[in-house]
Amino acid sequence: MTDERLKDASRLAIHTMTNKPWSLAQCVAGYAAAGVRAISVWRNVFESVSLADAARMLGDAGLAVPALVRGGFFPAGDAGERDKAIDDNKLCIDQARAIGAEMIVLVVGAVPGMMLAEARRQVEDGIAAVLPHAEASGVKLAIEPLHPMYAADRSCINRMADARVICERLGHPLVGIALDVYHVWWDPDLEAEIDLAGRQGTLLGFHVCDWRVETRDLLTDRGMMGEGCIDIRTIRRWVERTGFTGFHEVEIFSEHYWRQDQAVYVEQISQAYLEYC
Amino acid sequence: MTDERLKDASRLAIHTMTNKPWSLAQCVAGYAAAGVRAISVWRNVFESVSLADAARMLGDAGLAVPALVRGGFFPAGDAGERDKAIDDNKLCIDQARAIGAEMIVLVVGAVPGMMLAEARRQVEDGIAAVLPHAEASGVKLAIEPLHPMYAADRSCINRMADARVICERLGHPLVGIALDVYHVWWDPDLEAEIDLAGRQGTLLGFHVCDWRVETRDLLTDRGMMGEGCIDIRTIRRWVERTGFTGFHEVEIFSEHYWRQDQAVYVEQISQAYLEYC
Repeated sequence: MTDERLKDASRLAIHTMTNKPWSLAQCVAGYAAAGVRAISVWRNVFESVSLADAARMLGDAGLAVPALVRGGFFPAGDAGERDKAIDDNKLCIDQARAIGAEMIVLVVGAVPGMMLAEARRQVEDGIAAVLPHAEASGVKLAIEPLHPMYAADRSCINRMADARVICERLGHPLVGIALDVYHVWWDPDLEAEIDLAGRQGTLLGFHVCDWRVETRDLLTDRGMMGEGCIDIRTIRRWVERTGFTGFHEVEIFSEHYWRQDQAVYVEQISQAYLEYC
Repeated sequence: MTDERLKDASRLAIHTMTNKPWSLAQCVAGYAAAGVRAISVWRNVFESVSLADAARMLGDAGLAVPALVRGGFFPAGDAGERDKAIDDNKLCIDQARAIGAEMIVLVVGAVPGMMLAEARRQVEDGIAAVLPHAEASGVKLAIEPLHPMYAADRSCINRMADARVICERLGHPLVGIALDVYHVWWDPDLEAEIDLAGRQGTLLGFHVCDWRVETRDLLTDRGMMGEGCIDIRTIRRWVERTGFTGFHEVEIFSEHYWRQDQAVYVEQISQAYLEYC
């Protein structure tokens, strides 16, 4: 990797949830002001702005939209709930198409007390059920393996290998993986699985942040890149070795950073991205 | 498994850290009063009782001592620190022999910023360095895979498979694995790895507690058996299918339970053990 590429922020994207205190309009303006050219949108923004307005706002700003976050949560104890999840994922796909998002990110879900193997079967069935809709819309479905500390209730898929198995079983060009360094940095198989995803054409997304060594909260204490223990640059190298040309999406949930001035914070993100990713 | 075996508490052991507010003497008396016949000892108890007194106390009570907890923490940035860790592990082995503990549990360590593969190499070297001492003392060394949320600073070994690799490389009858359901319940390879550990003769310890679905703290919010999402009975079945006849060691770190009456708590543990393990 040349020094020049390391100073290139053209692949930097930011997730709106990173700047939770901001509205979508503020994110759009704030990212543009900081020279950030891509935005991944969280669905909570649609609570205060219509889909049409969101699409117009993003289009006017000329921002690329790698992902709409998040679909998934397929497993449930009864068929009615599973059907509801499938409907919601179809809606998510429609919303993604409307705002020009390349993919939806799937936080696949888990049910406390349900065997993880059963939950994974339901995830596979759920993705299969929405695939025709994704196909008709041209929207990709990116399974995001979540850290094992979320296995109880958020995701029964906790390693790249387990996402890969679903991709292999479904064997569809729209189904792939969103790799978030926060969730998978510890996995001894990470490099091999990234290589394999590259060969299988399933590496759809690459999310960055950092793991704080003294993590104070399981959900909202992610670190800024460089602030923790993840060797992001090495993982980026593995990712790009596969031919990946997608965005590097900054996704930080942090009570600490949500309390800061968000414009200053976005500048810090750009700097940290150049320095540590 | 017959109902009779399910009502049998003869394999129940408790870790002294489970009852952190109690001294060793109180644990010994309290466990005996509740009909618990085995105790795993944490080394912090030696801050307030001599090794000789501890040994006498345990012997007088007729309690079995499956494990002394904990050795490990091998990786370090410089050779001097690594040597110190080796010395401390030898001391731990001596202490284990003195109190008649069958094994020491190794929380192997990790160094923030050190590549996990390098840390694992240092762990293997560290265990190899103390093996002659363990051999001379007849004390087993049980590698405990820790949950991936501890990969930054407590353990570079986060799955049964990764502990197995070290066991295979060292190939010594005293080196094995302590399986704690809290750390490994989420692992899709768990059943297969337990089977394999059984065949390889490396399954040395079996620790139980539960994973609270809303975990409030990464370190001290473990649940009582039955209180969370782990199917402990299924995992016990996998463990016993290998021929494992060791103790089922209750190890719960919980600010919540540490605030309760410890004698009542030990009774609750016995009940929960019979009901959910």
